[in-house]
Amino acid sequence: MFDKVVIVGVGLIGGSFALGLKAAGAVREIVGLERSSEALARARQLGIVDAVSTDPQEALHGADLVLLAAPVAQTAGILASLLPWLEPHTIVTDAGSTKSDVVASARAVLQERIHQFVPGHPIAGRESNGPDAAIPDLYRGKKAVLTPLPENPPASVDKVAAAWRACGAIIHTLTPGEHDKVFAAVSHLPHLLAYALVDDIANKPHADLLFQYAASGFRDFTRIAGSSPEMWRDISLANRDALLGELDAYLAQLNGLRARLADADAAGLEAVYGNAQRARRAWIEAIETFETPPSPDQESGK
Amino acid sequence: MFDKVVIVGVGLIGGSFALGLKAAGAVREIVGLERSSEALARARQLGIVDAVSTDPQEALHGADLVLLAAPVAQTAGILASLLPWLEPHTIVTDAGSTKSDVVASARAVLQERIHQFVPGHPIAGRESNGPDAAIPDLYRGKKAVLTPLPENPPASVDKVAAAWRACGAIIHTLTPGEHDKVFAAVSHLPHLLAYALVDDIANKPHADLLFQYAASGFRDFTRIAGSSPEMWRDISLANRDALLGELDAYLAQLNGLRARLADADAAGLEAVYGNAQRARRAWIEAIETFETPPSPDQESGK
Repeated sequence: MFDKVVIVGVGLIGGSFALGLKAAGAVREIVGLERSSEALARARQLGIVDAVSTDPQEALHGADLVLLAAPVAQTAGILASLLPWLEPHTIVTDAGSTKSDVVASARAVLQERIHQFVPGHPIAGRESNGPDAAIPDLYRGKKAVLTPLPENPPASVDKVAAAWRACGAIIHTLTPGEHDKVFAAVSHLPHLLAYALVDDIANKPHADLLFQYAASGFRDFTRIAGSSPEMWRDISLANRDALLGELDAYLAQLNGLRARLADADAAGLEAVYGNAQRARRAWIEAIETFETPPSPDQESGK
Repeated sequence: MFDKVVIVGVGLIGGSFALGLKAAGAVREIVGLERSSEALARARQLGIVDAVSTDPQEALHGADLVLLAAPVAQTAGILASLLPWLEPHTIVTDAGSTKSDVVASARAVLQERIHQFVPGHPIAGRESNGPDAAIPDLYRGKKAVLTPLPENPPASVDKVAAAWRACGAIIHTLTPGEHDKVFAAVSHLPHLLAYALVDDIANKPHADLLFQYAASGFRDFTRIAGSSPEMWRDISLANRDALLGELDAYLAQLNGLRARLADADAAGLEAVYGNAQRARRAWIEAIETFETPPSPDQESGK
């Protein structure tokens, strides 16, 4: 399906994309491109990529697909380094957690060649990072959200979708703005709230005593506060407007709940808790009913 | 060690205590006491209790230990029903998630016999409830917090501690007030925050779209919002003062973080996120180093 795929940033996300394409037999050659040759050597050693390069000119020669899998704040710099060597038939996509800012960077750098950039965001991750964490099944049964631009030829969008499908992902389409509002609510805000709680507790004079009694509920609630602070600083700033909107709505909700608690409004508290419990149960049931990952056998025939 | 133990409320918590005592060979007879004979019949069928009763007089005859494992809001009513039949040598303890309110209820009901009540709170749970969820190892390697009263004879506190140790638990001691402040921070506030987030999202006009893109991080963050709304309404109200204090501290923290985000203060955001990540990592390392559950073999010799 693909002759030559270039992965910029061969960590968990880029490496798992490479392994997924290889497992599906969907690519002839994968080249890893990074500034650091150390990460590349490890990716080569693990068999994630067939060849490595620190030179964009060499890597991009004859490439039909390029995946950017580096922190979103680096998008403009990376695209600027690729642009002189970007061949007319090459499609560039990305795996960034925010889309409006990535699109703005891509437009600023690529200008009249923006049609070659199809923005995307696979909804998958693991607790560990780097090439050693990469696995071929990371995207199996998971969503890959594409946020195509008006300038993208439909055939280019289809090619990017086909690559993610080869990795086992289910394709969803949103506009960049819709994407950012949705993920501000269900991902970026929860990260901010979890970081805020752990920092709040860690700064109390009796923090050691508190952590001593934190149990499994606290562990799950704060798991996302174990994520990279640099990455989430960048995501928070890249999606600042949508995140501020969601944070303000949540602060209003918390203030309302505080008033119910202060008034000892038992029915009012139970209404909020009960509505949340029912909504979460319905969501979990929907996930378990509709999103059972297809088995590798079912998927490999595609 | 115990001749006759009475469990009031033979669900996950009470049933697992019964199974743990039996597995350790620490009790001759366990009697389940409830108003509903249905739950009792199931507990008897599962072998959790040796006998069942809906009659406090019968159940309490000759009992050396009584565990209250019912919702905390029922403490006063249950103690009032037990008091006429409570023998002088019987020790009563409980498993409630809040302690100051439980102690206040116990003092009001038991009065000059308050010395017979040793308050406690085992820090363990599962996602499922009821007698069918009970397991003998629920408390193994987990903390059981006792909050003894000045009136308790040390020998009575030791007996309650010995029962929890027989179930594999590690005994900690706090005052009721300390207990409630600690759990307001590390348990009750996170529950309130998780309920608030899910309710907030569920009430948005595009809730279906949002839930569609919620992934594993959201699932873990909101797991505790799957807990019983009635139970958490009661806990929130029972520990209202401490919970309001923690909520206000958290609101101040969130407002500070909002200001950093609005100012695009990258260093300020990273400082909070980074401090949280480091504190959480240190906590997880401490858990994994110091709290590896003892194996059944090590424990059975006690």
